[in-house]
Amino acid sequence: MNWWQEAITAAKKNDPAVKSGLEVVLTYPGVHALFFHKFSHFLYRHRRFLLARIHSQIWRCLTGIEIHPGAKIAPGVFIDHGMGVVIGETAEIERDVVLFHGVTLGGTGKDTGKRHPTVRQGAFISANVQILGPVEIGEKAKIGAGAVVLKNVPAETTAVGVPAKVVRIKGKKVQHD
Amino acid sequence: MNWWQEAITAAKKNDPAVKSGLEVVLTYPGVHALFFHKFSHFLYRHRRFLLARIHSQIWRCLTGIEIHPGAKIAPGVFIDHGMGVVIGETAEIERDVVLFHGVTLGGTGKDTGKRHPTVRQGAFISANVQILGPVEIGEKAKIGAGAVVLKNVPAETTAVGVPAKVVRIKGKKVQHD
Amino acid sequence: MNWWQEAITAAKKNDPAVKSGLEVVLTYPGVHALFFHKFSHFLYRHRRFLLARIHSQIWRCLTGIEIHPGAKIAPGVFIDHGMGVVIGETAEIERDVVLFHGVTLGGTGKDTGKRHPTVRQGAFISANVQILGPVEIGEKAKIGAGAVVLKNVPAETTAVGVPAKVVRIKGKKVQHD
Repeated sequence: MNWWQEAITAAKKNDPAVKSGLEVVLTYPGVHALFFHKFSHFLYRHRRFLLARIHSQIWRCLTGIEIHPGAKIAPGVFIDHGMGVVIGETAEIERDVVLFHGVTLGGTGKDTGKRHPTVRQGAFISANVQILGPVEIGEKAKIGAGAVVLKNVPAETTAVGVPAKVVRIKGKKVQHD
Repeated sequence: MNWWQEAITAAKKNDPAVKSGLEVVLTYPGVHALFFHKFSHFLYRHRRFLLARIHSQIWRCLTGIEIHPGAKIAPGVFIDHGMGVVIGETAEIERDVVLFHGVTLGGTGKDTGKRHPTVRQGAFISANVQILGPVEIGEKAKIGAGAVVLKNVPAETTAVGVPAKVVRIKGKKVQHD
Repeated sequence: MNWWQEAITAAKKNDPAVKSGLEVVLTYPGVHALFFHKFSHFLYRHRRFLLARIHSQIWRCLTGIEIHPGAKIAPGVFIDHGMGVVIGETAEIERDVVLFHGVTLGGTGKDTGKRHPTVRQGAFISANVQILGPVEIGEKAKIGAGAVVLKNVPAETTAVGVPAKVVRIKGKKVQHD
């Protein structure tokens, strides 16, 4: 599959409101942002930092999604709605990850070098989740809406709340005291 | 009253910063979005789904508010500020509801058919509230800023927190253990 | 230092991703919004309320940041990313304050006159924080991501959560029962 086919497949799989592939191509700001980011990231890798930022800020204005040109994002990632998403310079997102609007993959200001999260394959990040620092969100982990995540979240667990706590492991409820 | 008069009345009633009706008509993105939505919804009802989405995504870009063309919204609803608001395809909003910026009336991905909230007359949804699933927010209910609502909220109650809990019934505080 | 020099200094101090002063001037929407706000506020002080609002809504569309023309903001304030920031008419922000995207300095609807927060020098307000009402955020206070603040936060304390509680005083952890 090429990049666009993967984008359409991801949108259809995750959004029951999709009516056609053409609709995804023409009207999904999250798909547009990720497509534009490919070129911003190309400029960044060739050390055209200023040009890369100018490019990314132009499509930020059109899509409401701010992805730093340095972020590494695999094909098949789906950003739904997307307004207010902020993804930092050293963030990494693997295949089949779903992100909703208002999600931050940001820094805490305490780290140098790798300062932003890594989100592993198939993780699901609900609306308005703030993930801060060089933490890891494991494969197929789920983060509930509005959660604030400051620590690693293991694979196949569900974390919710402010600050986020694990409430399910492989679908089974966890007791907290 | 026509649609615009109701919109101005709702804005004046809910926002102490309003200086004139002309100001509301010219500078309130929430009012613009709801006006444009009337036409997106018209296209949707006539099954021009793609055209409806293209139309709604153009004014999303101008207003920062994303309302799916399928959503049913009564006159006299007021969206204040509005940046980041996301309203899903099967959401319904009754008269005199007030919504602030960052509010989501979204889905959980677990439902089919009716997947998004119903917000009853006069409910007040504060900034950044996430309401997910086909839940009902009762008449004159109030939801506090930043709350995450996954269950029905009865009429005339106040719910706050992540996840949201009822803290007042008809203005009287509720004790939680 | 002139206004732009202070803006560049504040950005470099607070964002490790900054590559050059030119990058800040050309590509930081928070810097653009604060620069445009100077003119909106000038119009407001000369009682050109409608013109001031039209001006502010045009650059809201470009930056994703909504600052009411009446808000009083000192030089050297830094808004990072900025999408979804809403700052109310009677809000005041002192020097060296840092605000992230999604922050609200809003009203509760219960007050008249001074209805919005005052943020004292050097305070740090993380992403998606909602501060509502005429409360005061003290000098060098820190508010954690996603917090909802409805009361004063004293100087040099850290507050987090929904609703926000003080968890550190001058860097030292506080015990809650």
